[in-house]
Amino acid sequence: MTTDYTPMWQELGLDLAGHEALLNVLGTAYTDIYLSQKNRPEGMGYFDFVMSEVHGLRIKELMDEKAAGRKIIGSYCVFVPEEIVLAANATLVGLCSGADFAMEKVEQLLPRNTCALIKSSFGFKIGKVCPYLESADMIVGENTCDGKKKAYETLGTLVDNLYVMDLPQTKTDQTRDLLKAEYMKFKTAVEELTGITVTAESLKSAIDVVNAKRAAIHRLSALRKADPAPISGLDALLANQVFFYDNPARFTESVNKICDELETRIQEKTGAFPAGAPRILVSGCPQAVPNWKLHMIVETAGAVIVGEESCVGERGTRNLTADTGTTVDEMMDAIVDRYFQVDCAIFTPNPQRLDHIQEMVTAYNAQGVIHYGLQFCQPYLMESIPVEKALEEKNIPCLRVETDYGMEDAGQLKTRVEAFIEQLR
Amino acid sequence: MTTDYTPMWQELGLDLAGHEALLNVLGTAYTDIYLSQKNRPEGMGYFDFVMSEVHGLRIKELMDEKAAGRKIIGSYCVFVPEEIVLAANATLVGLCSGADFAMEKVEQLLPRNTCALIKSSFGFKIGKVCPYLESADMIVGENTCDGKKKAYETLGTLVDNLYVMDLPQTKTDQTRDLLKAEYMKFKTAVEELTGITVTAESLKSAIDVVNAKRAAIHRLSALRKADPAPISGLDALLANQVFFYDNPARFTESVNKICDELETRIQEKTGAFPAGAPRILVSGCPQAVPNWKLHMIVETAGAVIVGEESCVGERGTRNLTADTGTTVDEMMDAIVDRYFQVDCAIFTPNPQRLDHIQEMVTAYNAQGVIHYGLQFCQPYLMESIPVEKALEEKNIPCLRVETDYGMEDAGQLKTRVEAFIEQLR
Repeated sequence: MTTDYTPMWQELGLDLAGHEALLNVLGTAYTDIYLSQKNRPEGMGYFDFVMSEVHGLRIKELMDEKAAGRKIIGSYCVFVPEEIVLAANATLVGLCSGADFAMEKVEQLLPRNTCALIKSSFGFKIGKVCPYLESADMIVGENTCDGKKKAYETLGTLVDNLYVMDLPQTKTDQTRDLLKAEYMKFKTAVEELTGITVTAESLKSAIDVVNAKRAAIHRLSALRKADPAPISGLDALLANQVFFYDNPARFTESVNKICDELETRIQEKTGAFPAGAPRILVSGCPQAVPNWKLHMIVETAGAVIVGEESCVGERGTRNLTADTGTTVDEMMDAIVDRYFQVDCAIFTPNPQRLDHIQEMVTAYNAQGVIHYGLQFCQPYLMESIPVEKALEEKNIPCLRVETDYGMEDAGQLKTRVEAFIEQLR
Repeated sequence: MTTDYTPMWQELGLDLAGHEALLNVLGTAYTDIYLSQKNRPEGMGYFDFVMSEVHGLRIKELMDEKAAGRKIIGSYCVFVPEEIVLAANATLVGLCSGADFAMEKVEQLLPRNTCALIKSSFGFKIGKVCPYLESADMIVGENTCDGKKKAYETLGTLVDNLYVMDLPQTKTDQTRDLLKAEYMKFKTAVEELTGITVTAESLKSAIDVVNAKRAAIHRLSALRKADPAPISGLDALLANQVFFYDNPARFTESVNKICDELETRIQEKTGAFPAGAPRILVSGCPQAVPNWKLHMIVETAGAVIVGEESCVGERGTRNLTADTGTTVDEMMDAIVDRYFQVDCAIFTPNPQRLDHIQEMVTAYNAQGVIHYGLQFCQPYLMESIPVEKALEEKNIPCLRVETDYGMEDAGQLKTRVEAFIEQLR
């Protein structure tokens, strides 16, 4: 970062020493993992810049928005509809949850046997090192898994602006009504926060903005079908991660620009990896910045990740919101219909997810699937067993990985991943 | 057992060798833990007999009922309304889930990090050692915690008669409607199974039968307030466990008979423990037969357990169903209202549970609370931390225990429990 953002961080109440330590670790990790990659698309320069300014310029932008009266809303989940937030002239940002921080204090509030993602979100709050969280005017929780659902009760004692959204566990007409009621309540809450009423016009425009962002990611994903893969899984994952942080219009433009470049690379048969490199689909729990561990291990072992069946990936972005509605209620229905299709493992039964994994294997010409489970994430760990069984019945090799944000198991993981890749060659 | 039930077990498809091994372990444990107790009420002879015949005479009764055309419905949770089952002339039984069995095979279907109760339910099925499960015409699952919710997807591949009930995660008017809709659907499913339509008369009668069973347990609980405690926690826990298995009318009569005896014991100041013995409330996860581990450790250390804030205890039995309705719909509403009050940790927020723990501490003159958490049971482990905090703020000592069905940690647990009891003296 070229600018000194210390006064801004101080104003946000960050723990400056802890925050600096975090940025140093993040910077070193980014250099080691990302900048060391060979044959990267030039367009990734944009994301290198974004990451170098992730707690700097982007926060400055949010602070400028706040100064101009716009509200910032933070979220931990793809079930929080960005359309509604944008339509009420607010900004949605994903909150920090991809690295361990202040774990000793976290484990005084949460059981040790809680997944790394949840513990991390607490660590960033307790350690005062997440400027997104500290700048948020409203933090949105949601009743997805037991871990998050119960953790929000405690998070509510740490922050004074937590809003919790209920979610259904099954997909029926009645539970769709529940989701609609929750989204209507959320719309009201956001309108109250911003003082701006969502109109048909603003909602239509917001749907277009979010759809454009998703369409750009769809375009990027489709280009990963080529062999040689024109972009690494690490770089594509980063784009999916930045999806949650960046200014939507700029993000869309930047991703489309990379896609233009990738199209040229495909024509020229320029790959991030050699043609014929083993192709792997990653499926399972979300990987938030800076959780690049699995992708790094897979790709330094010579295989390329060609897709993420994940909240930070196609599960989160795959469907567009229908833009055919003309009234707010019609558009709210379209939003509900779109999000109700998200095949998160919290739903029971959840056969759509298994179908989608198999569709992705075919679409991206993957030779194998690595199921990424965060330790203690019951919904995904539970689902990983029938997923593996179903894939193997179709002769699609599957490796189930259960890990956390620590590097203690990196050696063991590397050995297992390498053996799996050998099996695919 | 005096009768040879082998032909019946064979007919049910039990694994006879495995089942015999289980009964031997159970019998030895019961002798060591229960029959070795001093100063027991004579009325416990009934429960000694019930336990000695738990896979014998009781199953014979169920088989006789089946032969007479009555259906048997098995359940794993206090959210399954016995009133509806009885009103359709069926019998509800709790299913086996208190001991480890066939764990190696279970862990091929469920993640290792799954709570002992869920793994146990699979173990009894896979090992073919639960005659209740094998005799059931319908098995009812319910979307409580993530672990059970997702495990039922797999259990559905092991049994051919699984019915899963959805449950809400919050308590609002809309989620009460969801519970009502689920109970109406369940009523229809049970009616279809039995071919018997629930009438106002049969439902009224069923409500009375279940309320009488609860009232008997309430009476037993109230008598535990006395010092010296007229009955051990182990014996009272057993009555609460048998609540789920026994013929309702006989259970009610037997509990009331013990209560008559306990009233005499209280007048005579006869205790299961000396007056002044430290008094402990156990709060947390359910303890199914033969999970007597914590009670045994506490009571062999010289303290007496005076109440269970648990599904197998007051959380499960505390409220009666209002019997003022005259139509089926009015009574269904009363049933929904009754069960909607159950303060299971799956709900968010769940302040009623904390209130209830404190009420029980006062009512039973407990000097301390042991929070019993099954390892990997996220909802209760999550809640245990704020529960402990709230109790300690009121100067009520609290010990948080996290354990499973194994005996590997018994020594360590004993040391912690003894130190906790010392603190109460």
